[in-house]
Amino acid sequence: MAATIDGPTMYPAVLTLSCRNRPGIVGAVGNFLHEHGLDIREAQQFDDRASGQFFMRVVFAPVDPARCLTLPEFSPVADDFGMDWAMTPVSHRPRTMILVSRFDHCLVDLLYRQRTGELPMETAGIIANHPRDTYAHLDLDGIPFHYMPVTAGTKMEQETEIWRLVRASGAELVILARYMQVLSDALVAKLAGRCINIHHSFLPGFKGAKPYHQAYARGVKLIGATAHYVTSALDEGPIIEQDVERISHGDTPEVLVRKGRDIERRVLARAVLHHLERRVFISGSKTVVFAG
Amino acid sequence: MAATIDGPTMYPAVLTLSCRNRPGIVGAVGNFLHEHGLDIREAQQFDDRASGQFFMRVVFAPVDPARCLTLPEFSPVADDFGMDWAMTPVSHRPRTMILVSRFDHCLVDLLYRQRTGELPMETAGIIANHPRDTYAHLDLDGIPFHYMPVTAGTKMEQETEIWRLVRASGAELVILARYMQVLSDALVAKLAGRCINIHHSFLPGFKGAKPYHQAYARGVKLIGATAHYVTSALDEGPIIEQDVERISHGDTPEVLVRKGRDIERRVLARAVLHHLERRVFISGSKTVVFAG
Amino acid sequence: MAATIDGPTMYPAVLTLSCRNRPGIVGAVGNFLHEHGLDIREAQQFDDRASGQFFMRVVFAPVDPARCLTLPEFSPVADDFGMDWAMTPVSHRPRTMILVSRFDHCLVDLLYRQRTGELPMETAGIIANHPRDTYAHLDLDGIPFHYMPVTAGTKMEQETEIWRLVRASGAELVILARYMQVLSDALVAKLAGRCINIHHSFLPGFKGAKPYHQAYARGVKLIGATAHYVTSALDEGPIIEQDVERISHGDTPEVLVRKGRDIERRVLARAVLHHLERRVFISGSKTVVFAG
Amino acid sequence: MAATIDGPTMYPAVLTLSCRNRPGIVGAVGNFLHEHGLDIREAQQFDDRASGQFFMRVVFAPVDPARCLTLPEFSPVADDFGMDWAMTPVSHRPRTMILVSRFDHCLVDLLYRQRTGELPMETAGIIANHPRDTYAHLDLDGIPFHYMPVTAGTKMEQETEIWRLVRASGAELVILARYMQVLSDALVAKLAGRCINIHHSFLPGFKGAKPYHQAYARGVKLIGATAHYVTSALDEGPIIEQDVERISHGDTPEVLVRKGRDIERRVLARAVLHHLERRVFISGSKTVVFAG
Repeated sequence: MAATIDGPTMYPAVLTLSCRNRPGIVGAVGNFLHEHGLDIREAQQFDDRASGQFFMRVVFAPVDPARCLTLPEFSPVADDFGMDWAMTPVSHRPRTMILVSRFDHCLVDLLYRQRTGELPMETAGIIANHPRDTYAHLDLDGIPFHYMPVTAGTKMEQETEIWRLVRASGAELVILARYMQVLSDALVAKLAGRCINIHHSFLPGFKGAKPYHQAYARGVKLIGATAHYVTSALDEGPIIEQDVERISHGDTPEVLVRKGRDIERRVLARAVLHHLERRVFISGSKTVVFAG
Repeated sequence: MAATIDGPTMYPAVLTLSCRNRPGIVGAVGNFLHEHGLDIREAQQFDDRASGQFFMRVVFAPVDPARCLTLPEFSPVADDFGMDWAMTPVSHRPRTMILVSRFDHCLVDLLYRQRTGELPMETAGIIANHPRDTYAHLDLDGIPFHYMPVTAGTKMEQETEIWRLVRASGAELVILARYMQVLSDALVAKLAGRCINIHHSFLPGFKGAKPYHQAYARGVKLIGATAHYVTSALDEGPIIEQDVERISHGDTPEVLVRKGRDIERRVLARAVLHHLERRVFISGSKTVVFAG
Repeated sequence: MAATIDGPTMYPAVLTLSCRNRPGIVGAVGNFLHEHGLDIREAQQFDDRASGQFFMRVVFAPVDPARCLTLPEFSPVADDFGMDWAMTPVSHRPRTMILVSRFDHCLVDLLYRQRTGELPMETAGIIANHPRDTYAHLDLDGIPFHYMPVTAGTKMEQETEIWRLVRASGAELVILARYMQVLSDALVAKLAGRCINIHHSFLPGFKGAKPYHQAYARGVKLIGATAHYVTSALDEGPIIEQDVERISHGDTPEVLVRKGRDIERRVLARAVLHHLERRVFISGSKTVVFAG
Repeated sequence: MAATIDGPTMYPAVLTLSCRNRPGIVGAVGNFLHEHGLDIREAQQFDDRASGQFFMRVVFAPVDPARCLTLPEFSPVADDFGMDWAMTPVSHRPRTMILVSRFDHCLVDLLYRQRTGELPMETAGIIANHPRDTYAHLDLDGIPFHYMPVTAGTKMEQETEIWRLVRASGAELVILARYMQVLSDALVAKLAGRCINIHHSFLPGFKGAKPYHQAYARGVKLIGATAHYVTSALDEGPIIEQDVERISHGDTPEVLVRKGRDIERRVLARAVLHHLERRVFISGSKTVVFAG
């Protein structure tokens, strides 16, 4: 959350909020913005009848560019409804730490999308458990690269160092871009709600190793991938995005792995973009995604 | 638009509105509902920066079930912003006239979805340019069936009769369920915004007859269908819904026609449902669809 | 398998075969057909390197319409390679028994597709564990309807009767069109390779009751369906076809059920068509599907 | 076409052939391979009833690794049926020339897929009408980069130079990876059947500039891309692959362009892979694609 959004460069800005649902929220927020000379560009809300929780995302900008809002001005409204809220300039590009293992298809894709401006983020660093030359053809363009091999014996130290780097780099988001290590519950807890993982998905699902080989043996006709927030329940956190592709009996496990790479990278990129645009809210074990 | 929505059975209700965009709309609507003891269940809005038009859909219900709203109460707000608006009970099932030619896959599908309750409508009648026995196995369950053959010479009379039936039956919606006749501009004008058509779509598009044969000859890899509001521009009205399916070189034109039937019926059904749930707004040559 | 395919009405015909893979099969089959004056219209084969099994499907017809083939003529080739084989006229419409419970969306869809000629089968009967009036609006057009309620106490007797009806009706295929009963291993064994079931599928999968409610609680972004051959492993037989649809956080369990119906019926219809066209081969726990 | 495929490293190999359809082809090919001690790994054929043309793709390998085939051995069979044919080691990695303009998403993607081994090709060079620093972050890893600006006045000279480079580099394939220049009929003729282009596709299609802006104005619900062989009919050559993505009224033209990039690069990559694996045959104005 931005310390303040005073200054024209701060607009348009995004207001995200959630609270127990009760009548009057939309009117109160709408009026507040209107009375402060702010025009609503986009607004989406969701009333989760199951949980009784209310979620809202509003993109706004001053009618008079000279006009500015200071965050405390919204506090009375927020306090009245007990809101968990944030205001962030749309132009804000969160610093992001990317963790990767041997396969770099997601890493390469994320960096490319950042360069084209498609992903409004700033890569604060890359943490890999393989050495730099594993990604020889990747132009890091000055992004800090941290080689952190991990073994059963050094896992705790390695995670401590990861956490230190995340804080030191000011990373607001951590992406597990095919990082094949399970994070400890302790680290997961520290990264709650800001650590996104990608993994393959099948119908039906498979447990254990070599899932693509299992999918081949089982003769599934679709393979997919799921991007989710990391929780202590392995590969079971709140789902942000999913997609699938059709396969056939002729596709070998190697072909499935290749097609899987395509799905993984596009699903992860979509999930990260939704997160960066502040479209994703966690509601218990699921997400609310205000897709564009 | 409902004459009034007084009475508990009328809730939840849907408020749909559009007007020139200007600051304060969301707050005004939100406050109005709140001050009248109405709770917002769902709300979506869209600010079409291109046209400057604002669109909003709100589902609401009284906090106190005994409380009721009379439409004039909203008029001041509506007038203030120059809104084009309507309030309709969610339970309202619009009367619908279905026009069909020889192929009945869309007709059969629409009637089945009405029976399962999936499509909240009441079929006021079926107008076909083929005789009743063309649809021998279809149990109309008392739905009036009107056989209206059409020839170049009788087209005007036939359309006059169609229009008479639409009014007489109180139909709020007209569905061209693979009705292979082009309506005259005069009739199209009378049905503006409440007549939905379905037709095949390809990339690239094809003009002229036997489109599936053209698609085969051209070797397209995808075939699709488009549901849209009917305008005087043939098959070019505002698009409500589209979908496609993958095909291969081995699919004969007959197979394409068969696969096309599947796409046509599901695209039409989705478009009709969006319309019935009052999720679709026409904005010039396109639509705004507040998908669930 | 046709007793014989003598007579012009028998062509084109489909030869399906499988055997241990070994060099020379394609040549032997190709030559056999050529030497017997038969032209290949379509041919697909698959060499399952994992299992060492070979699968082939050939559509053929005589160059000289007067020419006919008697099955024994192919026996030497078949015996030489130890083939499991069949020759069937493309015009053959297998008799099919459809089992259904309360929800009839798949049943209605299958019967409609049979009438349009899309599904080349002949419904030999319908076995329902709900009374006829559950499907009041369905015109059976003379198809025998068998009401067979089932309870824990009568399950064995009911299955015995089902098996009697399948044999008595000469049904070659049994379709579980949302038949919510688990068949006993004994009955499953008798129907091996000719009983198709449809069930919902999710990523990740869910065990237990009310799967759509679980999917909602879990916030999955895709829901799907799987059609498979029935084996003693519940919902785990060889997969024939699968498909999915995108959903959002706003979709209630009721909406998921509705969208699920659409996926279920089209996935089941595709699987049944593949089976009827003799495009599906079972290879251990998976299928080989020579899609058109 | 390989000069010869003598030597174990040459296997498995792919035989691709097309000829006027007539009985006996499959048998003749199958027998030839069998008699020469070659085992069929994969085989697909298509009998285009519309054109009377027959197409076949066979992957084969010697039963005895020491055994080799010399091309002339197949000539008698080929001549007998008047086949247009080729035999190529699966390991063959065609040299490829990639042409690009300002947008490099397809170029970056193709090079990445080549490095991972997903695309079995060797990039012989890159021809760009923008200077090298336009692609500053792209590690070319020694791939020759040719900056060839083009103006109306220099187009002929530029194309002459392109053609010279294609020949000099031994490129068997030319990829227009978002190369926004129309090639002259003369150059197109020289590249017939070995030049692949990618372009956006919509339902309905749009002519003229800024297609994504037109798609936005028209409110289409799907955007797509088409990969095709280049012919003198602009963007109308035989289609190899197509795909689409769902969009909404909220997606600005900028978002459509971004989503379009994703579709373009994956559709182009699939088309190139099909071509490299020799799965694509041109049949008049369409293609036959023996998908894996």
